Amino acid sequence: MADPRFFNRQGPITLGELARISSAELAPGCDAEQLVHDVAPLDTAGADELSFLDNPKYADAFRSSNAGACVVAAKLAGDAPAGMAVLLSDRPYRAYALIARAFYPGASADTASRHPSAIIDTTASIGEGCAIGAGAIIAAGVVLGDRVRVGAGAVIETAVTVGVESEIGAATTLSHCDIGARCMLHPGVRIGQRGFGFDMSPEGHLDVPQLGRVIIGDDVEIGANSCIDRGAGPDTIIGEGCKIDNLVQIGHNVQMGKGCVVVAQAGIAGSAQLGDFVVLAGQAGIAGHVRVAAGTQIAARSGAMRDTDPGDKLAGNPAIPAREYFRQMATLAKLTKDKNSS
Amino acid sequence: MADPRFFNRQGPITLGELARISSAELAPGCDAEQLVHDVAPLDTAGADELSFLDNPKYADAFRSSNAGACVVAAKLAGDAPAGMAVLLSDRPYRAYALIARAFYPGASADTASRHPSAIIDTTASIGEGCAIGAGAIIAAGVVLGDRVRVGAGAVIETAVTVGVESEIGAATTLSHCDIGARCMLHPGVRIGQRGFGFDMSPEGHLDVPQLGRVIIGDDVEIGANSCIDRGAGPDTIIGEGCKIDNLVQIGHNVQMGKGCVVVAQAGIAGSAQLGDFVVLAGQAGIAGHVRVAAGTQIAARSGAMRDTDPGDKLAGNPAIPAREYFRQMATLAKLTKDKNSS
Amino acid sequence: MADPRFFNRQGPITLGELARISSAELAPGCDAEQLVHDVAPLDTAGADELSFLDNPKYADAFRSSNAGACVVAAKLAGDAPAGMAVLLSDRPYRAYALIARAFYPGASADTASRHPSAIIDTTASIGEGCAIGAGAIIAAGVVLGDRVRVGAGAVIETAVTVGVESEIGAATTLSHCDIGARCMLHPGVRIGQRGFGFDMSPEGHLDVPQLGRVIIGDDVEIGANSCIDRGAGPDTIIGEGCKIDNLVQIGHNVQMGKGCVVVAQAGIAGSAQLGDFVVLAGQAGIAGHVRVAAGTQIAARSGAMRDTDPGDKLAGNPAIPAREYFRQMATLAKLTKDKNSS
Repeated sequence: MADPRFFNRQGPITLGELARISSAELAPGCDAEQLVHDVAPLDTAGADELSFLDNPKYADAFRSSNAGACVVAAKLAGDAPAGMAVLLSDRPYRAYALIARAFYPGASADTASRHPSAIIDTTASIGEGCAIGAGAIIAAGVVLGDRVRVGAGAVIETAVTVGVESEIGAATTLSHCDIGARCMLHPGVRIGQRGFGFDMSPEGHLDVPQLGRVIIGDDVEIGANSCIDRGAGPDTIIGEGCKIDNLVQIGHNVQMGKGCVVVAQAGIAGSAQLGDFVVLAGQAGIAGHVRVAAGTQIAARSGAMRDTDPGDKLAGNPAIPAREYFRQMATLAKLTKDKNSS
Repeated sequence: MADPRFFNRQGPITLGELARISSAELAPGCDAEQLVHDVAPLDTAGADELSFLDNPKYADAFRSSNAGACVVAAKLAGDAPAGMAVLLSDRPYRAYALIARAFYPGASADTASRHPSAIIDTTASIGEGCAIGAGAIIAAGVVLGDRVRVGAGAVIETAVTVGVESEIGAATTLSHCDIGARCMLHPGVRIGQRGFGFDMSPEGHLDVPQLGRVIIGDDVEIGANSCIDRGAGPDTIIGEGCKIDNLVQIGHNVQMGKGCVVVAQAGIAGSAQLGDFVVLAGQAGIAGHVRVAAGTQIAARSGAMRDTDPGDKLAGNPAIPAREYFRQMATLAKLTKDKNSS
Repeated sequence: MADPRFFNRQGPITLGELARISSAELAPGCDAEQLVHDVAPLDTAGADELSFLDNPKYADAFRSSNAGACVVAAKLAGDAPAGMAVLLSDRPYRAYALIARAFYPGASADTASRHPSAIIDTTASIGEGCAIGAGAIIAAGVVLGDRVRVGAGAVIETAVTVGVESEIGAATTLSHCDIGARCMLHPGVRIGQRGFGFDMSPEGHLDVPQLGRVIIGDDVEIGANSCIDRGAGPDTIIGEGCKIDNLVQIGHNVQMGKGCVVVAQAGIAGSAQLGDFVVLAGQAGIAGHVRVAAGTQIAARSGAMRDTDPGDKLAGNPAIPAREYFRQMATLAKLTKDKNSS
């Protein structure tokens, strides 16, 4: 059970309702009125809790689980232990996510609140039902949509806009940007500071004014302490539904399509362009001005230095097709062994 | 045009004045009294805007541009479309930067302001014309030079000094340090926390007191969420004119010369010494105690583990001459191909 | 001498007392009543200061040092210059650390203080002798042990607990976590934000609720701007005595044993498990779900993608035994040379 100090659980919820929420099907013989009180992992779930089986390597844990109910693919449902109610889904992880969200809907800003210590400029426009935390600072001309949440100590600079139901984490700073609806920005995010643009010279590097903005689409998540610089002239653009992890760097003028996934500590250099659903694994990098085609996947700790083709799977530095990279590593290991044994 | 919500444009400015500002030469036949209202990229600039051509690969965009004026090298000026006024410069990008700075001089703290919510210790010394943001915290004995700007929520700890006209970003924390003049520290910068020094032991790692400071020269820029630890006994020193990007780590006792450029997510381990004008590309690293000679350039995602010679261009892990690194990558690709085709 | 603006020195202290503090032995003929006023490096120490010799490569500096006293191993003590008092220790660096801590004990929160601008919920429990900085925000149900220090602008969210004598740096944010005793969290640390868990889908990536916590053991240090996400269901666990540097990423469900050392900009992906005393050098990475055995050492800029054995020393991407990695690099260099010279 999630720690009640930190999480506010709803429920109980009937199996029938959970099936409806998760677009799953209640297996024959199961009672739609059975009450479920919580979600839990297979190995710790009890009779009033629901679990899920997504990865076949946990099939043993499924067979021996004491969970009162479980979401599972139809082909594996036959292994359910006696007494376990089964919800059938061809996407058990998604079904679990929807059910877990029903039990733990999280904070919602349905009733307006403003901590008296928040500093809100009189020219800022605050939507209905917003929750503004202690010590938050909201400057002139800021526009917050309805039900926006602003964390403690967050700083929202002049004229920034934030779409409905977005959450701005504690200690985050926003400037020169427009944020979409239903975004989640974690603590310490930095958006809109000037990009790293200079005329380099032995007599001193000269700052080039950075005159663009950052435009963040709807449903974007940005991890703790990640940084997105504003454009030099064009804007920096993050497409809707992108999910960005912690400590990620996104340089000026970068344009990202929809649904991209950028894992922790990855970096995207200035003016790179990413198509839809690009995946950048942890600590990977994309060089400046590179065009990364839709669906490209770049392995952890790899660096893409050239344009890619749709669906490419790349690894290494400079990144090459991942299969080729691992073949090269094997070749090098063999040559080294041959050399040392001859 | 830059978004007027975020940027305050000056002007219009005559061509003659722009030539003077940028040390460019007005081409024969152009009217020094022509008014320019803004800067813009070649492909979007209109008749009252000025653009620039720096990279020959944009020569086509230049030839078809509708910009009313353009800064360009003399040898390319002949390709200017009819009706475009031309400013001749052998450094068009620098000239553009100077002109853009004239149109967008940025915020300046020429009139003093202190947000009433700022907490300023009575023993702090605040220069003339400083601007102190909402919620900023300035501790005992701090000394701010004239026209310093302190962002919202910034924390400046005991006895720190900041030189004239420096800008301390929102939510930045400074301790145990002296900051030069005209520096720009972006949001979330961390300066002066204790270095990572321990006597390692199975019975417990023991903190070794870190008794040095951080000394930052004039005209240094430090990117968002970058960290510079104070020295263990000696100081950590950043030379004048260094430009440091976002999410960079600089360990205790590091000494950097003048004009170094450190791109995002690069790291410099403790006690490394960098000469003047070293360039460290994105996600690169320098190992502890290494001496990096003046003018060394280290490629993205590469790691310098040994002392370097002046002007070295290095790549790989451990870093070797870049030319050699790319030759090795080609050799490995060929050997792998041969092996798999035999 | 450490800058008195930033460091508050105690003393003088007699040689006899320093020997006692550091478990060292006063060499024959030395005066236990001799007063020492400070610590300093060998090359700058004067007659009333104490230094140390740990690394034999500094033996020359030792022989020519003007330090009034020095901690040194017995076998090197014979090289001490005339007039230098000698403390004998088989662990000179540890002895020095203990002595330096006696001269510079650092801030201690033995007298309670609460800056009037701090915002402390009435239901928070604040131990005796705590020091709460300006602008700090402490939410409902928070429990701080005795003599905890909270830096300026730190945000401690609902129901978080912090053990005795821990220090929470300025501008740090804590949620969904329990922090042990005597921990040191540097500025900008982010703990407890939701992990990076989604059901990925072309129709939109769906957030999976992250229902675990972060549990930090005693005596843990966490560097500036480092991030530790809370668990997805299980907790994220950092064992006692772990030392974590700046800009480190630790994903959800990670479990770390005791005394691990994680150097700057390293990253540990979700659900990885680390045994005791694992060392992860700078910019290194550990892939998700990997089990890293006790005592494993991973070189800088290397990535562990598979389970390791106790005491493994690894390098490369994917990481292999370090000796093998460097052999491979040598092989590749030789093959490239042969190829280009043939």
